[in-house]
Amino acid sequence: MASVAEFCDAVDNSTITVDVVGCSAYLAATETDEVLAGVVEGLNVFFLLFAGAVVFLMQAGFAMLCAGSVRQKNVKNIMLKNLLDACGGAIGFYTVGYAFAYGTNDEGGKNFIGTSNFFIRNFSAGGDLIGWFFQFAFAATAATIVAGTVAERCKMAAYLCYSVFLTGFVYPVVVHSIWSADGFLTAFRDDPFRDVGNVDFAGSGVVHMTGGATALVAAIVLGPRKGRFYDEDGNPLETPATFQAHSVALQILGTFILWFGWYGFNPGSALAIDNPDSAATAALCAVTTTLAAACGCATAMFFDSVMDARATGEVSYDLTMAMNGCLAGLVGITAGCSVVQPWAACIIGVIAGLVYYGFSKLLVALKIDDAVDAVPVHFANGMWGVLAVGFFADPTLMAIAGYNEEKGGVFYGVGGDLLIVQIVAVLWIVGWVTAIMTPFFLVLNALGMFRVDALEEEVGLDISHHRGSAYDLTAPKKEDVEELMEVRASRHGKVEVPKEVAQAAETEA
Amino acid sequence: MASVAEFCDAVDNSTITVDVVGCSAYLAATETDEVLAGVVEGLNVFFLLFAGAVVFLMQAGFAMLCAGSVRQKNVKNIMLKNLLDACGGAIGFYTVGYAFAYGTNDEGGKNFIGTSNFFIRNFSAGGDLIGWFFQFAFAATAATIVAGTVAERCKMAAYLCYSVFLTGFVYPVVVHSIWSADGFLTAFRDDPFRDVGNVDFAGSGVVHMTGGATALVAAIVLGPRKGRFYDEDGNPLETPATFQAHSVALQILGTFILWFGWYGFNPGSALAIDNPDSAATAALCAVTTTLAAACGCATAMFFDSVMDARATGEVSYDLTMAMNGCLAGLVGITAGCSVVQPWAACIIGVIAGLVYYGFSKLLVALKIDDAVDAVPVHFANGMWGVLAVGFFADPTLMAIAGYNEEKGGVFYGVGGDLLIVQIVAVLWIVGWVTAIMTPFFLVLNALGMFRVDALEEEVGLDISHHRGSAYDLTAPKKEDVEELMEVRASRHGKVEVPKEVAQAAETEA
Amino acid sequence: MASVAEFCDAVDNSTITVDVVGCSAYLAATETDEVLAGVVEGLNVFFLLFAGAVVFLMQAGFAMLCAGSVRQKNVKNIMLKNLLDACGGAIGFYTVGYAFAYGTNDEGGKNFIGTSNFFIRNFSAGGDLIGWFFQFAFAATAATIVAGTVAERCKMAAYLCYSVFLTGFVYPVVVHSIWSADGFLTAFRDDPFRDVGNVDFAGSGVVHMTGGATALVAAIVLGPRKGRFYDEDGNPLETPATFQAHSVALQILGTFILWFGWYGFNPGSALAIDNPDSAATAALCAVTTTLAAACGCATAMFFDSVMDARATGEVSYDLTMAMNGCLAGLVGITAGCSVVQPWAACIIGVIAGLVYYGFSKLLVALKIDDAVDAVPVHFANGMWGVLAVGFFADPTLMAIAGYNEEKGGVFYGVGGDLLIVQIVAVLWIVGWVTAIMTPFFLVLNALGMFRVDALEEEVGLDISHHRGSAYDLTAPKKEDVEELMEVRASRHGKVEVPKEVAQAAETEA
Repeated sequence: MASVAEFCDAVDNSTITVDVVGCSAYLAATETDEVLAGVVEGLNVFFLLFAGAVVFLMQAGFAMLCAGSVRQKNVKNIMLKNLLDACGGAIGFYTVGYAFAYGTNDEGGKNFIGTSNFFIRNFSAGGDLIGWFFQFAFAATAATIVAGTVAERCKMAAYLCYSVFLTGFVYPVVVHSIWSADGFLTAFRDDPFRDVGNVDFAGSGVVHMTGGATALVAAIVLGPRKGRFYDEDGNPLETPATFQAHSVALQILGTFILWFGWYGFNPGSALAIDNPDSAATAALCAVTTTLAAACGCATAMFFDSVMDARATGEVSYDLTMAMNGCLAGLVGITAGCSVVQPWAACIIGVIAGLVYYGFSKLLVALKIDDAVDAVPVHFANGMWGVLAVGFFADPTLMAIAGYNEEKGGVFYGVGGDLLIVQIVAVLWIVGWVTAIMTPFFLVLNALGMFRVDALEEEVGLDISHHRGSAYDLTAPKKEDVEELMEVRASRHGKVEVPKEVAQAAETEA
Repeated sequence: MASVAEFCDAVDNSTITVDVVGCSAYLAATETDEVLAGVVEGLNVFFLLFAGAVVFLMQAGFAMLCAGSVRQKNVKNIMLKNLLDACGGAIGFYTVGYAFAYGTNDEGGKNFIGTSNFFIRNFSAGGDLIGWFFQFAFAATAATIVAGTVAERCKMAAYLCYSVFLTGFVYPVVVHSIWSADGFLTAFRDDPFRDVGNVDFAGSGVVHMTGGATALVAAIVLGPRKGRFYDEDGNPLETPATFQAHSVALQILGTFILWFGWYGFNPGSALAIDNPDSAATAALCAVTTTLAAACGCATAMFFDSVMDARATGEVSYDLTMAMNGCLAGLVGITAGCSVVQPWAACIIGVIAGLVYYGFSKLLVALKIDDAVDAVPVHFANGMWGVLAVGFFADPTLMAIAGYNEEKGGVFYGVGGDLLIVQIVAVLWIVGWVTAIMTPFFLVLNALGMFRVDALEEEVGLDISHHRGSAYDLTAPKKEDVEELMEVRASRHGKVEVPKEVAQAAETEA
Repeated sequence: MASVAEFCDAVDNSTITVDVVGCSAYLAATETDEVLAGVVEGLNVFFLLFAGAVVFLMQAGFAMLCAGSVRQKNVKNIMLKNLLDACGGAIGFYTVGYAFAYGTNDEGGKNFIGTSNFFIRNFSAGGDLIGWFFQFAFAATAATIVAGTVAERCKMAAYLCYSVFLTGFVYPVVVHSIWSADGFLTAFRDDPFRDVGNVDFAGSGVVHMTGGATALVAAIVLGPRKGRFYDEDGNPLETPATFQAHSVALQILGTFILWFGWYGFNPGSALAIDNPDSAATAALCAVTTTLAAACGCATAMFFDSVMDARATGEVSYDLTMAMNGCLAGLVGITAGCSVVQPWAACIIGVIAGLVYYGFSKLLVALKIDDAVDAVPVHFANGMWGVLAVGFFADPTLMAIAGYNEEKGGVFYGVGGDLLIVQIVAVLWIVGWVTAIMTPFFLVLNALGMFRVDALEEEVGLDISHHRGSAYDLTAPKKEDVEELMEVRASRHGKVEVPKEVAQAAETEA
């Protein structure tokens, strides 16, 4: 093209001739291309800013959901953990996490871990910077999943250790293996495993299984909360005690915020929105995410209602089932949101609701205590989500989403390569996380750093570690209210007090 | 243009001549156009993803607002209804709702209902998919409006029946008539009614009146809550009892989330943002939405303060009035947000605040019990919003927003066609909704499926239908706290306990 | 170019020749440019719609944070103030505020205040309209900062007066001086002060110092809450009383919403996103904002834990410290978010946490009562944020963000001009706000319009001014619950009641 430029440089512009016209058009087109490239860059940065911010808001969702689910005496503790793991996630992912996850290294080819871009050094382009922001929000999500499971009994120091370790090392290794350009399971290299690589679009495996498997290991090592499965003498209870959630309002608020956040999590994983394929992918993600959440919610709740009605004779509707069913559907669709049809999203959601129900009951049967049922939601449905892709991935959609269009789910009759890769991915994540987290938690536990002492647990962590209770709903003194009413009544020359004030005082009294 | 391409194909590219320059420029321009078209598609999909997600978050707003407004014993119930109608809305709008609303049919021309695109089959382009998502969020909004009105006494099964029926059929028919290309009142056909068609930009009528009218019918059929207007023997109370909202914090949170959501609802209804007209329309919507909300809030609250001060002699400021006045302004501007000037938005907001105040008092006078005042907010101000367009629509803005620029509000001296259409739209929506929902609710009621029994109502729906109360604020045992304090005091060799712990213990005790 | 158009008009299009090719290309390029210009406009409007809406949501964040921080008896009051200042801000900024801030005036050159565009008259382009919306959201933020500080004792009427005065006049004057094209400190004029002008990208000074300084003046004039520093006889307490926050859940929710909102506040201040520089600026803002928040949070909390452990011997983690440290980091990075490197953002955050800690203790030592510590967060860290730019601004980033690339922080060895300007800006804002707000509050106070009377304060503002308490957590009557259980038990022919119902009833009883 340089020579067209030379030709045009030499053109005589003193009179308008066909040369000048052609060159004007050529120059205009070139300039337009440059402007357009800038628009494309800006649009994509904006897209990831939106998506990342919305994913970040999921921290609030987790905080509300977890805090609502625990007892009143541990609210401050769980909220603080949620806030601190967002902070720890930022610092951990800034210093080393991003480098391990997405850095390259000198060897090239498949490798275990990245070794460049520590402290995101030399990042100056918008795309690089916003990429870090978006990925940080994911890392923080992985960390925060664990908070709920170990709530009400885990020491703060242990929590901080583990959450920095997870966002700084364990999670980045998983990301590197599946989402970087050099990982051994990544779909984004020239020669992916079994010609397709792992299809985990927004991270049912990478994010939710990693967080969920850690939570499971932690719950086993840490043991159940006092009084949940055993009485004070250590004898198993006939029926496990359920600890009532202290605020359903916070739980539901958290659920809605999380659902909302998923519209950043899943569509945002298209990473760009400047072309028809990316646009179709992001839009499809919004649709499949919605349908899976809806189906998961309805399935878990109604299935539970039926089972419960058979046992008790009364029909009731359980909010926790509805809420966790919804989240189960969301986790379940996260791997496949861009490669399955809307009808398949419905089926994935339905099964996710059942997987949640079954796994939740299974944990209780195994006397593993998960304070917010994060393991059934994130771990079990993370697995289901990854595997579901092996069945339902539509080759046409695979192509649009940037995967190998010759592969797909076994239901599409294109062979089992993808399903095999998905199974390997599940095994890899479970293996890696348990292999590294089990000794980590065992050591913490052996050192007495993992679990608060029995009396502190009984009193609750808010008073024992955070300087007091999370709530103080003390009403004003009755005599003050009465005095005010008298003053006002006399001022207006009437004996009757204003209706509303009288009513309020009564309520308070 | 094909022949220019042929000419260029034949050009000798071995040396740079004017032919080559022209063809290079031509080719570059063509390629740029393609890239640009992709950017336009991506940008618009992103815009509707943002707007749809924000509208979806309104579900959280409604849930918080409604839950905060009811008594403590019905919190779980109302929250579950809000969650389930989002799910039901998704399923209903996926299976048939969208097809009825926006499908075409073989007859062409004006028709009652669409009959294509069931299960959004064959949707693959980003625009189609994200269009469904955005419209689903609206459908869910229409459904959820009713939840608050019938709170504290409506059976869950009845609620589910009605909400699927509304999102799957009743609402889609209204949408088809006004927003599809074939409806009898739509502005988007070649020969719209009275040359202009119904101007209801974001749905004061389509969404809010439909939801609000359903709520009104339901409230009448269902009857008031026990003890609201009648005593236990069925004699009318001298003064209606007011049931105090159980949490103002949730109400205000809900109000702010809804206001925020309206920035998706109204600007998002531009449906595209890739050109100056759409951009100006969306931006204007953000401005008018803000001003109407602010004016509605201030008007309703201060008007109420004045009226109340005249009666009681004390000046007080009512949060419920402020909050519902704000929502009234938002509903009132929804139809005209894109076609009225900012000053007109202020007037619409002021009147909306008064309409809310008056209609709220009227309902009480008529002994119609609306647990959250959704009927005055959504139905009354939905009507006001549709009618206001007939007065205030600026023809210049009509043109920019894609309506017939020769028509407008009567205040602009362009005749009364638009006002007539708006009146017809109000009558149509009221007529259709009452004609179909009245028998629906009457039948439910006759079958005993609509209202919970008296004892369940007294106990509250949370305990009677949802396995227990929404809150458990039980503090830790006093003796445990004291023991902990003693342990710590002795450990540090002092008799005094740390200040904060002592204080916390006191609060708890 | 007009003559190229003339040439093309004259071209014979009957056969395809090189003339026709060139002209086709020229025409295509011209049309493309027009379409592209529309896309650019739409993209930027969308960007500010997103950012403005997210900043607006910060109102909910402030409302939750402040409400959570006060005592139960003042919740309605503080929430209503937050809602009303959003409304007052809209009306004040619509009528005169925007005109004062961004209007031009006939004199040209440097001037004190703008005098055009009252009521945003003649605004029709998308860019103008959305610009107002975005700026309104900032103005409302400045106003709402004060609400928390003066909580629990300030009269509603005084609050409304001041908040309209602030958004309508005081804040616009600051904006005009620093962000308009004609201000005396603005960076956006041909001859800025010391060749660089004030670098306050998103308003550490303009927004947070203005709000914070007003809060400080108000707190001093208004005096502390009863019982905070003095006993009933007016004698100073040995140790100041701390009033426990009534709901940590609301505080943390507010904190997360505010942090989320900052992703509109800071990146949105790029004002455009259609080119690589804007994109890089917005992306950098997202990164630096994240890191400063994380570092501020961790620093304030752990520093406090260390100090407290030294005093008490017990390690505890304070949620308020974590939360306010986070907000301190956010305020501290707001001025420099676009011009400092990520590592510098970490340092700014760390220092912000310490500045918060120190200033908070200082206020207590001075017996100035700030109910939510808004002054240490917004005023002290607003100052720190503005000054930090003078040390850490990277000249390379200055260029990308549109500032004079020859200037920068003193650590970059480019001289002290920028630091001098930043110091002047701090002095100007402090001077202007105190000079105008001090007499304003003193007059209010002298007229008895500022502070509620002592009995009302004791009773709380909710009952004395807002018709009752913010909460009513009354459970259903025990006998009703028992009756229901009996009915159900007998219906199923069993004596045992369903487990969950029994449990719920017990909790309630």
